[in-house]
Amino acid sequence: MTGALVVLGGGAAGMSAASAARRADPDREIVVLESTGHAAYGLCGLPYHLSGVVPDAESLVSYPPAFFRERRRIDLRLHAEAVALDVARREVHVRTAGGVERVGYTDLVVTTGGTPSRPPVPVPDGTAVHTVRTLEDAVALRALLDSGRVRTAAVVGAGYIGLETAEALHARGVRVTVVERLDGVLTTLDEPVAARVEEHVRVHVELLLGTDAGPVLAERRPDLVVLCTGVRPAAGIAAAAGAATGPGGALLVDDRMRTDLPGVWAAGDCVAPHHRVLGRPAFVPLGPAANRTGRVAGTNAAGGDARFGGVVGTAVVKVFDLEVARTGLTLAEARAEGVAATATDVTSRSRAKYYPGAVPLHVRLVHGAGGRVLGAQLVGREGAAKRVDVVAAALHAGLDVDDLAALDLAYAPPYSPVYDPLLVVAQAAQRELARVA
Amino acid sequence: MTGALVVLGGGAAGMSAASAARRADPDREIVVLESTGHAAYGLCGLPYHLSGVVPDAESLVSYPPAFFRERRRIDLRLHAEAVALDVARREVHVRTAGGVERVGYTDLVVTTGGTPSRPPVPVPDGTAVHTVRTLEDAVALRALLDSGRVRTAAVVGAGYIGLETAEALHARGVRVTVVERLDGVLTTLDEPVAARVEEHVRVHVELLLGTDAGPVLAERRPDLVVLCTGVRPAAGIAAAAGAATGPGGALLVDDRMRTDLPGVWAAGDCVAPHHRVLGRPAFVPLGPAANRTGRVAGTNAAGGDARFGGVVGTAVVKVFDLEVARTGLTLAEARAEGVAATATDVTSRSRAKYYPGAVPLHVRLVHGAGGRVLGAQLVGREGAAKRVDVVAAALHAGLDVDDLAALDLAYAPPYSPVYDPLLVVAQAAQRELARVA
Repeated sequence: MTGALVVLGGGAAGMSAASAARRADPDREIVVLESTGHAAYGLCGLPYHLSGVVPDAESLVSYPPAFFRERRRIDLRLHAEAVALDVARREVHVRTAGGVERVGYTDLVVTTGGTPSRPPVPVPDGTAVHTVRTLEDAVALRALLDSGRVRTAAVVGAGYIGLETAEALHARGVRVTVVERLDGVLTTLDEPVAARVEEHVRVHVELLLGTDAGPVLAERRPDLVVLCTGVRPAAGIAAAAGAATGPGGALLVDDRMRTDLPGVWAAGDCVAPHHRVLGRPAFVPLGPAANRTGRVAGTNAAGGDARFGGVVGTAVVKVFDLEVARTGLTLAEARAEGVAATATDVTSRSRAKYYPGAVPLHVRLVHGAGGRVLGAQLVGREGAAKRVDVVAAALHAGLDVDDLAALDLAYAPPYSPVYDPLLVVAQAAQRELARVA
Repeated sequence: MTGALVVLGGGAAGMSAASAARRADPDREIVVLESTGHAAYGLCGLPYHLSGVVPDAESLVSYPPAFFRERRRIDLRLHAEAVALDVARREVHVRTAGGVERVGYTDLVVTTGGTPSRPPVPVPDGTAVHTVRTLEDAVALRALLDSGRVRTAAVVGAGYIGLETAEALHARGVRVTVVERLDGVLTTLDEPVAARVEEHVRVHVELLLGTDAGPVLAERRPDLVVLCTGVRPAAGIAAAAGAATGPGGALLVDDRMRTDLPGVWAAGDCVAPHHRVLGRPAFVPLGPAANRTGRVAGTNAAGGDARFGGVVGTAVVKVFDLEVARTGLTLAEARAEGVAATATDVTSRSRAKYYPGAVPLHVRLVHGAGGRVLGAQLVGREGAAKRVDVVAAALHAGLDVDDLAALDLAYAPPYSPVYDPLLVVAQAAQRELARVA
């Protein structure tokens, strides 16, 4: 008889895994061990709860625990923290309110997610320090904001979460200073593109780049410090049990999300899935891959057959009034990887120029040998977020600049110029390639 | 010595051709013969001038005649109507205010565009009858609307232009009845998708389907009738000179936009370019292809080398508050073509479900043998217009349903659910295919 399928972590990856396992095997015993008091919520929505855009924290939860327990017959255990993994005995050591117990498994799916980096920033006494990673984090921070005691805040880190958090705090009437050790915001973009975002951020909040947070906090003594200095894979338990790790310390998996430990799969922010453009594993902890790798891992762990197609590094973020999107490789990433690459930049428009609401849309196209499309970055007040998906599809299909320029893209004056900005940048890249040739 | 390059028609295709020819050959004599008093304007913007969204008709003109004449040294002749083509002598017979003259050419680019169908609808005496095809049409109709004498209008035809015109008239406070002979609106969509548009149209204007216009006009006696019953290729001159025609009477061209007449190229709404999904020429008179085929024809006519990659049938239209988009083949089109096909429908959301402004987005995915993606249709208050481009790229690359389901699409709560609606429909199609297999 096949024993329990145990999932470590009840986040997007974990609940996707458990649900997929249930679909693959209607009879299997499925246990989810979640360390916090909440499961199945969207991390990416947390800043919008802080800001008040999403008033009710519960609405971030896709399904309540009862749904999983009753409808999907998943034994979801909250406040159950896996602290060790005994691969030889196929047991997880779990700390609960009642002490540490052992939970046996036949198949294990590790979705232990990510942990906020906690840089050793000295914080003045009496200053509240928060991170924004769990629903509990967000609820606590929201309660603090609701108390009216926060007039000034420092956000440490100017990545996706840092900027989203700065926007949220600003929306709550807090005077915000963003402090970033590096010289730019959003280092997942090339510098000239990030500079456009930087300029926009400065309209709304104070931004200190190339700056250590410690002295700023000591001098300003803000009411609140939010640490948004990135996420590390929480791969500790599996790694301690001998699982191989790769980029950033994330777990290495095959395309079925199997680790090199027997009976152990992994998914979500603790793994480094295959990156199709890099051709190797990469650590890009984002929601869609968490959901999808979870589904693949759960299906396979339950005896089904699924493969993960990999990521191409697509991401989008709202930064105040800007849509900021990227996919594939930046020029800097390509060069760091030793890939010969060129960037072509154009600033086009989001709609026909005569149509009200047309705004500038900046597009950077990164292309390599033979005109192969390697990536794109888009920034504008509208039209960036989903246009990037066309390039994501182009990367998936291995299209080149000529292919991109030949795409039959939708046109109507309210939605696009007659030459879509993606076609404009592709045509500009063609001209550059022709000049070089 | 190489003689003049003559372009018949100063619309998007014609001015694209002339400009591309100038880039390909800085010294060539280039003549454009345009029958109306305006050149280089966007047809697709005309409804927005009627509605007042675009107050100034001149803003629809991309560049004024002086720009072409002075900056690009293009001999743009307005009010010059080509009436016949003498291929043996390489002469065009041109009617101007001064009579008919002959203009010789070495290379000719025919961009005579489209002509509104004029069905034999009996119109009551005293009722103004208009079409919306040229800038002059729009200016005249706009003046009539500005006069305040139009309180009721009948729009004959419920295609793209009919619905855009109905919206424009409605925005001007006119009571509008749309009369369509067929049983649905937008017959370029499958019926169940078009039904969603129909329901939305009925919220704003009266819609009479399956109805002959004549009796309605006789009974209602509206102040204004606008005929929007489609466009035929204006291929007459070239066809009369012996050029081969294909679907709908449009000119047949190769991928360099060469007709089968010596020295004669053609582009824009008068041609049937290659349709990549159908694998044959098709008449789809839309702005992007007009611009691009014009550019290709002009480049080649001037001795350069360019090819047109074909269309996949992508189109988008704003219908009141809906974005309506399509690409590839509808299920009906596929079946009419003898292509085995299935449609998968899902209604997803434009944003994360908890994010304000999330609205239903309906997606129909049409797929064929082996799961090959054949087309898509999207309808929603937001998120349809540019999402369709991902499927257009998929069609270009020949992706299948599994590929589409594996795309790494952008996610952030303000822009998409974590599974983009395109992934949701692709996953649904995968399940359907698995059931059948």
